Amino acid sequence: MADVDALVAGIRAGARRPLARAITLAESTREDHRAVAREVLARLGKPRDTLRIAVSGVPGAGKSTFIESLGAHVIASGHQVAVLTIDPSSAISGGSILGDKTRMATLSKSPEAYIRPSAAGETLGGVARRTRDTMALVEAAGFDVVIVETVGVGQSETTAASMTDLFTLVLAPAAGDDLQGIKRGIVELADLVLINKADGDLKAAAGRAASDYANAQRLLRPRRESWSARVVQCSALHDDGVADIWNAMREYRSLMIDSGEYEKNRSLQARHWLWQETTDKLVDLLKGHTQVKAELPALESAVESGSLAPSVAADQLVKAFMNMTGESS
Amino acid sequence: MADVDALVAGIRAGARRPLARAITLAESTREDHRAVAREVLARLGKPRDTLRIAVSGVPGAGKSTFIESLGAHVIASGHQVAVLTIDPSSAISGGSILGDKTRMATLSKSPEAYIRPSAAGETLGGVARRTRDTMALVEAAGFDVVIVETVGVGQSETTAASMTDLFTLVLAPAAGDDLQGIKRGIVELADLVLINKADGDLKAAAGRAASDYANAQRLLRPRRESWSARVVQCSALHDDGVADIWNAMREYRSLMIDSGEYEKNRSLQARHWLWQETTDKLVDLLKGHTQVKAELPALESAVESGSLAPSVAADQLVKAFMNMTGESS
Repeated sequence: MADVDALVAGIRAGARRPLARAITLAESTREDHRAVAREVLARLGKPRDTLRIAVSGVPGAGKSTFIESLGAHVIASGHQVAVLTIDPSSAISGGSILGDKTRMATLSKSPEAYIRPSAAGETLGGVARRTRDTMALVEAAGFDVVIVETVGVGQSETTAASMTDLFTLVLAPAAGDDLQGIKRGIVELADLVLINKADGDLKAAAGRAASDYANAQRLLRPRRESWSARVVQCSALHDDGVADIWNAMREYRSLMIDSGEYEKNRSLQARHWLWQETTDKLVDLLKGHTQVKAELPALESAVESGSLAPSVAADQLVKAFMNMTGESS
Repeated sequence: MADVDALVAGIRAGARRPLARAITLAESTREDHRAVAREVLARLGKPRDTLRIAVSGVPGAGKSTFIESLGAHVIASGHQVAVLTIDPSSAISGGSILGDKTRMATLSKSPEAYIRPSAAGETLGGVARRTRDTMALVEAAGFDVVIVETVGVGQSETTAASMTDLFTLVLAPAAGDDLQGIKRGIVELADLVLINKADGDLKAAAGRAASDYANAQRLLRPRRESWSARVVQCSALHDDGVADIWNAMREYRSLMIDSGEYEKNRSLQARHWLWQETTDKLVDLLKGHTQVKAELPALESAVESGSLAPSVAADQLVKAFMNMTGESS
């Protein structure tokens, strides 16, 4: 536990290296590493008030430029900002953040910012699990605005929405003309739709896209009780409109807190994570059990071919696991 | 096992009472009852080729009338049809099918049809689990066209889609004018969109709704490789257009089988069910474990208030469960 003491003390003192070390342990595939990270987390205790912002959007919409610009406003308001990335396709191994340093040149040099790329992981579930632990660690370390960026399009957006307070969708005018460009479900998640690149030749197109999206938003059922989704134009490259967006985010937070919806949403999310993590752990244990591993191939193939009912096969798997003959190998 | 033998023999002989008894056992909350049902299922073996059709739509669109009309065409083509209902809000206890007998007067009298209302159950997950077992039983009993009807709007549609080969969305013209009437995600599930009540005063409105939906479908990514969603008008009440719909369903089935997508979809569904059932069973066992029950309230409340990380709490729950002190009570 000497390791835990040193990490906790270092993180409390605001040092970067112990924080990075704890995150690497949380992201490790080794259970003993993750146990140390969880112990650090338990010792650090509940963090001060934080705001968790998801930033999603199609590639090329200017998410990184927007995060650079937003991050500067967040820091200027007296906050510390952490940027995490959910990218299940990423092959980056823990530690290499060259890509993000290049993408967010100014932010990555700020002492008030902490940028961490995606955990490596085969499945979105695994990546999500580690991103949640990383978020808890950076919050406990004092970063009180956490930006969760998703890369690419797919299910990452739903995952990011399930672990944040506010969902931001960044679109570029060219993509804005075409509602097909993004999965429909994603527009429904948005608390703020940002039409980026509202400058130069694209200014008029951005205006049209903004009114298209504002119309589309009116057709959707509001996601929150105390907030209606807003569509805002900006030019992150010229830092134009980003201060207004940060103000809107603060207004959102304050309305949501006043109505009690903010805390309610966080409680529901935490409860959901608790059961998601519990379920994942149980299924991992089952899959690692010797007798289950021996029986699984035949059962799976019988189920897939339709000759065995899934409930019958599930019964056999659980029975094999609960007999506990042959501890996980 | 005398019960199992009698049930298997009775079901094989085409008797209704043993089938109803096996379904009631499958729907029971008692584990020993469900074990008998699963044994019956295992003994009945793989059924002959079947077609599973989901029928969803807003209340008042005429789903029951459509199922009555479709059922008659299905039986006339030499098939036996079973109608199951997914309705998590239903308080009907196993056995009472008065509601469905009234709704589907002709079909409920046919010897070639079997109508079974929703399993009673608090959660959609529980209802889905039992519907899947019921589906396996009616298929093993020789009903080769299974219609899964959803009642109300919500997540039932996704559940129905996950256990069927073909998803049918029934709309009425009045609802069709208003895209808000149904959740967007549901249109995306549809292989066939039926604009019902295309008769009398509503005929013109049905035509407009059909072209609106056909336009909307073009914006969506196709759900299948070998089939593009179709929008069809019908008047189930006058049995008008329903024969064409049954023909379209047969065409769908044959295109999907030829491309291999039909079997692939079934395999993926069966695999998904296997893991869903396994996970459900494990979580049920964990929740019933004495030590887990003792620790859970404090852990849940600490997680919900944000003072304990979900991953730390999940660890404790799984440890308490795996120690296996205090068998489930």
